[in-house]
Amino acid sequence: MSLIVVGTMAFDAIETPFGKSGQIIGGSATYVAYAASNFVKPVNQISVIGYDFPEEELEELKGRGVQMDGVQVKQEEKSFFWAGKYHLDMNTRDTLDTQLNVLASFEPKVPDAYQGSEFLMLGNLMPSLQLSVIRQLKNRPKLIVMDTMNFWMDTAMADLEIVLKEVDVLMVNDSEARQLSGQFSLVKAAKEIMKMGPKFLVIKKGEHGALLFHENEVFFAPALPLEEVFDPTGAGDTFAGGFVGHLAATQDISFNNMKTAIIKGSALASFCVEKFGTTRMKEINAAQIDERIQQFVDLVNFEIKLAE
Amino acid sequence: MSLIVVGTMAFDAIETPFGKSGQIIGGSATYVAYAASNFVKPVNQISVIGYDFPEEELEELKGRGVQMDGVQVKQEEKSFFWAGKYHLDMNTRDTLDTQLNVLASFEPKVPDAYQGSEFLMLGNLMPSLQLSVIRQLKNRPKLIVMDTMNFWMDTAMADLEIVLKEVDVLMVNDSEARQLSGQFSLVKAAKEIMKMGPKFLVIKKGEHGALLFHENEVFFAPALPLEEVFDPTGAGDTFAGGFVGHLAATQDISFNNMKTAIIKGSALASFCVEKFGTTRMKEINAAQIDERIQQFVDLVNFEIKLAE
Repeated sequence: MSLIVVGTMAFDAIETPFGKSGQIIGGSATYVAYAASNFVKPVNQISVIGYDFPEEELEELKGRGVQMDGVQVKQEEKSFFWAGKYHLDMNTRDTLDTQLNVLASFEPKVPDAYQGSEFLMLGNLMPSLQLSVIRQLKNRPKLIVMDTMNFWMDTAMADLEIVLKEVDVLMVNDSEARQLSGQFSLVKAAKEIMKMGPKFLVIKKGEHGALLFHENEVFFAPALPLEEVFDPTGAGDTFAGGFVGHLAATQDISFNNMKTAIIKGSALASFCVEKFGTTRMKEINAAQIDERIQQFVDLVNFEIKLAE
Repeated sequence: MSLIVVGTMAFDAIETPFGKSGQIIGGSATYVAYAASNFVKPVNQISVIGYDFPEEELEELKGRGVQMDGVQVKQEEKSFFWAGKYHLDMNTRDTLDTQLNVLASFEPKVPDAYQGSEFLMLGNLMPSLQLSVIRQLKNRPKLIVMDTMNFWMDTAMADLEIVLKEVDVLMVNDSEARQLSGQFSLVKAAKEIMKMGPKFLVIKKGEHGALLFHENEVFFAPALPLEEVFDPTGAGDTFAGGFVGHLAATQDISFNNMKTAIIKGSALASFCVEKFGTTRMKEINAAQIDERIQQFVDLVNFEIKLAE
């Protein structure tokens, strides 16, 4: 039950209505690894960092079973940096600054030790790099999950279409699903997107929860109603990490088990947004996660008797 | 198990991205009555109509157990008329025309035959008229449910605050909850609103479902993901009618039974939006409603085992 995670390990600087974070740890693969490592070990990380990425962060992740053989360290360059500002509704944000740095020339390499991993999580990254990882694997994983974003639809659609044909599960948010499909209705969007390759589609709706589509089936998981969303950065990656981490831990890729995976991902994401960056992900333990999952059960659980 | 429904019976003219309806039957009490009558009889209607309201519509409603003793007919005046246009997202709309007509001088009268009804649904209407109905009842109903809208928060807030103190369940949409409470977070908004009077609060989020709050408990019901929302007019009233109709039919006003009521209301609302106006509400039968409710069960049902 091993999992490869591909994506960025980076710095973020975040502004929300609640304040500014300063420079903090971020990156899609960082969040995925923190989340997935609650359920599965090892997490075989593939990423790239510069000389400035803190050693203690790597140690923290290693302590959680995250393997760093596939994380390239470029001693002459800085780590990828993103700065963004959230609007009041916390569902939309503006990018204030993007410095590719190490990412500009990144060529992911799959270490021999990672070969044979049964699960692959392609965190948000240039589609050509996601594809490169798939192509380097000697055996196709049991399940390939892919995250992407509107930026790649605008700038690398041809590559994105190729990757889509190779993956089992695609995760996008609602506006990305609409853009990718050209359909406003999410039900119609899902049908179109599943024709592009993925057999499963997760549409993330932020505070409005997430939908899982497969053939003619659909499952909905709410987001936990929170008093405050402090910082949404990484919530989607954390959700993805919880999702794929649960699947990898259970080795069960049925639609039914994906429902459970979505609830677990949602529970982890609900922690992520409570503090800046990865702060909350470092604090939580298994008991707290279970307690949060129980809140999801209580939130949606109802009994109904249908007329005879 | 009798239910009083107060609200408008009116004409609407609706524009959506799919077309124009022309002048059709509408009104909050009309939708509530169609929905509630699936579960409870009689529905004791209180409203006002003009000379132009079609007799066959009244007959249709009577055939469903809707009592018309409390519906005033003003032979010299026209029925209330509203025209509106929906934006592409179907969640927002502009009012194109409002003609109060019979509503301008409406004074609701509770017929003697309605006294002793155990459930009261105050459909969206001027707060002073909602209050007048409460005051005319000799015995307080077992449960008073109230719908309202932002227009009354803007124009009749003092009256609205008085009615709020008298009701058990308030139903508003998310933007109205924010306006009423001055809180952006819906969890905080709910806490503030429950201090104003209602012990239960339903926040309707349209295509994003509905939340039920009570003390420290919260329940979430999704909206059914539909290929097309054809016309959202009346969805909120239909939801309310299904909700209160189920409660009145079962005589159980526990939080747990309100969860079921919300699912039933959501199921009826999911039919309502499939065609213009009340069209769909006239077509559906008990078996179709049960089938739709089963879709809600399937949509949110998951199994999860928590670690020991």
